[in-house]
Amino acid sequence: MRVIGIDPGLRNLGWGIIEAEGSRLRHIGNGVCHSDPGGTLAARLLELHSQLTEVIRQYRPNMAAVEQTFVNKDAVATLKLGSARGIALLVPAQAGLQVGEYAPNAVKKAVVGVGKAAKEQVDHMVRMQLPGVQIAGPDAADALAIAICHAFHGQSAQRMALARGAR
Amino acid sequence: MRVIGIDPGLRNLGWGIIEAEGSRLRHIGNGVCHSDPGGTLAARLLELHSQLTEVIRQYRPNMAAVEQTFVNKDAVATLKLGSARGIALLVPAQAGLQVGEYAPNAVKKAVVGVGKAAKEQVDHMVRMQLPGVQIAGPDAADALAIAICHAFHGQSAQRMALARGAR
Repeated sequence: MRVIGIDPGLRNLGWGIIEAEGSRLRHIGNGVCHSDPGGTLAARLLELHSQLTEVIRQYRPNMAAVEQTFVNKDAVATLKLGSARGIALLVPAQAGLQVGEYAPNAVKKAVVGVGKAAKEQVDHMVRMQLPGVQIAGPDAADALAIAICHAFHGQSAQRMALARGAR
Repeated sequence: MRVIGIDPGLRNLGWGIIEAEGSRLRHIGNGVCHSDPGGTLAARLLELHSQLTEVIRQYRPNMAAVEQTFVNKDAVATLKLGSARGIALLVPAQAGLQVGEYAPNAVKKAVVGVGKAAKEQVDHMVRMQLPGVQIAGPDAADALAIAICHAFHGQSAQRMALARGAR
């Protein structure tokens, strides 16, 4: 399966795509969609929508996963982040993909083994699991971690379904 | 000018369209887009996107206005509302419309004359300004108020631009 992971943000929206076969992971691509901070919110969401739609058109993933971000800052910032998250969820849904959502701790647990891992540890483990990968920045690294998390969970879910079917 | 006002919400997203010529307002249409609360967030945003896109395709407004909602509840609720707001801003932008944003108090001030008006007063003034209108529900009434607010502000902005040009 080919998974796109998305780390939503209004200014920088990271994406990372991997191919997973059993325990083998292969890096396909990663990058960051940007919106112009000087634009209106509507114009910025349109920019993110166009760029992310193009990524999915180009790499044709068949599953998607988006991080469930929680913000402790003010409500205005949370509302803005929510609007970017809306785009991150909408675009793969428009392409007909199922979209998984994972809490940050679930992503860390899947990639590093513990839920409280530091950002550097996540980055390190992503590089370990995808040898030779060139990462476009911290948001792209997070997006690859989300994709790895989804591949892990998706495959365990598949195995469980197969096991149930075999009974 | 033909204005669509949008009152964003995940379960009920109100829309209202008016035509404004000078101080004359004419009701064109109003309604509510719904998403299935049992669906995933991605599926729900896709529903809202499809329905709102269809409204704009059908009524062809040339301006849009969206309410700047602020939520004082938990961050999770704010993030969800933000994602619906993202769709409300994206859809008109995709149709090439400029999208205005107004704080709830600005909407009340434009429609009722005071920023602290009760919901019933807003509803009453919308019905006064659009005689004979059939309103699909409270979210559609709010959306019509937002459209009226934008028509009011848009026309003063135009008059000011004309006045500046005449100097």
